[in-house]
Amino acid sequence: MNDRILRAVRREKADATPVWFMRQAGRALPRYRELRAEAGMFEILRDPEAAAEITTMPLEYFPVDACVLYNDLSTPFFGAGLQVEMRPGVGPVVDRLIRSPADVDTLRPYDPRVEMKYIMDQITLLTKRIDVPVLGFVGAPFTLCSYLISGPGSRNQEETKTFMWREPEAWNRLAGFWAEHSADFGIAQYEAGAGAVQVFDSWAGYLGVEDYDRYVLPHMHTIFNRLRAAGVPTINFLTGNPALLPLMAEAGGEVIGVDWRIPIDQAWKIVGDNRGVQGNLDPVLLLAGRDRAIEGARAILDRVEGRPGHIFNVGHGLLPGTDPDVLKAVTDFVHEYTAVRG
Amino acid sequence: MNDRILRAVRREKADATPVWFMRQAGRALPRYRELRAEAGMFEILRDPEAAAEITTMPLEYFPVDACVLYNDLSTPFFGAGLQVEMRPGVGPVVDRLIRSPADVDTLRPYDPRVEMKYIMDQITLLTKRIDVPVLGFVGAPFTLCSYLISGPGSRNQEETKTFMWREPEAWNRLAGFWAEHSADFGIAQYEAGAGAVQVFDSWAGYLGVEDYDRYVLPHMHTIFNRLRAAGVPTINFLTGNPALLPLMAEAGGEVIGVDWRIPIDQAWKIVGDNRGVQGNLDPVLLLAGRDRAIEGARAILDRVEGRPGHIFNVGHGLLPGTDPDVLKAVTDFVHEYTAVRG
Repeated sequence: MNDRILRAVRREKADATPVWFMRQAGRALPRYRELRAEAGMFEILRDPEAAAEITTMPLEYFPVDACVLYNDLSTPFFGAGLQVEMRPGVGPVVDRLIRSPADVDTLRPYDPRVEMKYIMDQITLLTKRIDVPVLGFVGAPFTLCSYLISGPGSRNQEETKTFMWREPEAWNRLAGFWAEHSADFGIAQYEAGAGAVQVFDSWAGYLGVEDYDRYVLPHMHTIFNRLRAAGVPTINFLTGNPALLPLMAEAGGEVIGVDWRIPIDQAWKIVGDNRGVQGNLDPVLLLAGRDRAIEGARAILDRVEGRPGHIFNVGHGLLPGTDPDVLKAVTDFVHEYTAVRG
Repeated sequence: MNDRILRAVRREKADATPVWFMRQAGRALPRYRELRAEAGMFEILRDPEAAAEITTMPLEYFPVDACVLYNDLSTPFFGAGLQVEMRPGVGPVVDRLIRSPADVDTLRPYDPRVEMKYIMDQITLLTKRIDVPVLGFVGAPFTLCSYLISGPGSRNQEETKTFMWREPEAWNRLAGFWAEHSADFGIAQYEAGAGAVQVFDSWAGYLGVEDYDRYVLPHMHTIFNRLRAAGVPTINFLTGNPALLPLMAEAGGEVIGVDWRIPIDQAWKIVGDNRGVQGNLDPVLLLAGRDRAIEGARAILDRVEGRPGHIFNVGHGLLPGTDPDVLKAVTDFVHEYTAVRG
C-alpha cells in the first residue's frame, strides 16, 4: 500500500512527496470525456461499480498517490430531499433555492449512511482494488449554502451573503445543518475505508476575514471537531483569499489546502508548523506546456525544501483542456525530484 | 472647493473622511438606467457634454467628495487602432484578440492627448462645473492585457497567463506598451484638471505573488514612476488577492485601494504608514439594506480610528441593484461619524 499521502497527513517523512490533483477523475481524461459522463453524473454515482471505474481512471494516465472519489459536493442535497441537475459548464442546480428562513426548514435531516450508501459502497469496492488511499470529500457549510442560496457559480455571492447578514439565525440553522451532515458523511466515508477526507470550501474566498470569523468559523469548528473525535485525517481546502489562512488553521484540518495566490512557504508560516500544507500549483500552468508546468512544480518544491507534511496538488480543480501527458510529467517530476532529496 | 480627497491623498487631516464609490456614475442611478447608456457608452463618451452630465449625476443622489469620470478602462484600445464593443453584462469586446507575439505589433502607438481628447475635454468641462475633484483613471497593464488576450470576464485568465508565461518577451512589449500609454493618459487627465488618477488592476488578483512580481511589477513601476515624476496624485487599486498588497505598495501609489477580503487596519499595516488606504466596503453589503450597510461602514471607520489618509469606498465596483438611497445613507453616515470625531 502506497502510504505517502497518509504519512504527509501525519507530517512524517516518506520516500517521495505525494501527488494528487483536484478533479483528476474528470474532464482532463480522454476516456472520461468519451463517456460524456458529466450530465449523467448522479446516475453513474448510484452505480458504485461504474463510479469506482471513473475514480481509478487517473491511474491509467499518471501515477498519483491517491484516488479522490468520483463524486460532487452537491450529492448530499438529494439526501436532504432536494432534486439536483448537473449542468455541464455551470454546476449543480437544485430544484428549489433557499431564499427565506422558512425554506431552511424544508430540508429533511437524513443519515448519509443510508441516503448516500452508494458512495460508501464505492469506497468499499475501491479499497479492495487499488493500492493507493481513497480520498473522500465533503462540502464546507458556506459552499453548500452558496449552492442552495445563490446557485452555482455566482460571481459575487450576493444572495448568499445577503441571507447570511440579514437572517443570521436562519443562516446558522442552515450552515449548522450542513456542518453536522458533512461531518456525518465524512465519518461514514472514513469508516468505509477512505484514508482521509477533504473539506472543500470552494466559494468562501469571496468572504472577508470578519465575515468568515462570524458566520463560517463556528460551523467549520463543528465539522473538524467531529472529524477529529472520530479519528478522521482531514484536509481543509479553500480558494480565493489568502487572508483567511489564519482562520482556516484555527478551524481545523491536519493539512491546509492553499491556492496559488500566496507562495507555499509563506502560507505554511501562517498556518503553523503543526499542519501539513497541500496544493499551490496554479492549474492554468498545466495548460502552458510541460516545461512551464514542471518549472512551476519545481518552484513549489524548492520553497518547501523537503519538509514533511507537503502534499503536491493544484491550488484549484484541473481545468478543461488539461493534457494528461503533462499531468504525468509533473507527477513523475515531483516523485523523482523529491526522492533524490529524501 | 471640497478638498477632502486631495487631503486624504496627502494624508492630511480633513473635516470628514472623504467618500466616493467605484462605478458611482452608472447602473446604480435610476436616471442613468433611463438613458440605457451602457451599450452606447463609447458614443456618449465622444460627446464631452453628455459624458460630463453622467459623471456628475451621482451628486444629485448622494453627496460624494469626488466625481469619477464616466469612462471605461477599454477606451484606449480605440487609440491603439482596435474596435471595441461594450456588451452590457459582459464588458468591452475587441474586434481582434491578441494571441501571438506578432499580434502585439499590430497595436498602433498613439498620443492620448489627441486620440482621447474627448476625455480631457470632459475633464475641462467638469472642473468648471463642480466643486468636488474630478478623479481620472487608467487601466493597469495586466488588466488591459487581459481584455486583449482573454477577453472580458475570463474566469481563470487562462489565455492571458499562458501568453505571459510562454511569450515573456512579447508580454513585456505588450504590457510595456500599456504602461507607457496609461502613464501618458493619466498625466494628460491630470493636466486637464483631474485631482488624482486611479490605476485599476481589476484582474491581477488572479495572479500569485511570484507571477505579479515577475510579470506585472516592472510595468507598474513604469506607470507610477512616470505619474510621480509628473506630480500626479495616484491611487493603486486591485481586487482579489490580499497577498499582493506588499508588492502593490512597492509598485507605487499615494493611496492603495483594497477590497473587502482583509480588514482595513491589517491592510494598512502591510502597505505602511507612508500610504493612504482606500476602500474595503463589500459592495454586496450595499444590497443588504441601509442598516447593514451602515453597520459595515462603521466597522471600517472604527478600524481606521480617524487616521488621516483614508478614502471611504467600496472594495470593488457597485453592483446592479444598488439603491441610491442606501448610498446616500452611507455617505451621510461616514461624513457625520467622522466629523464628530475629527
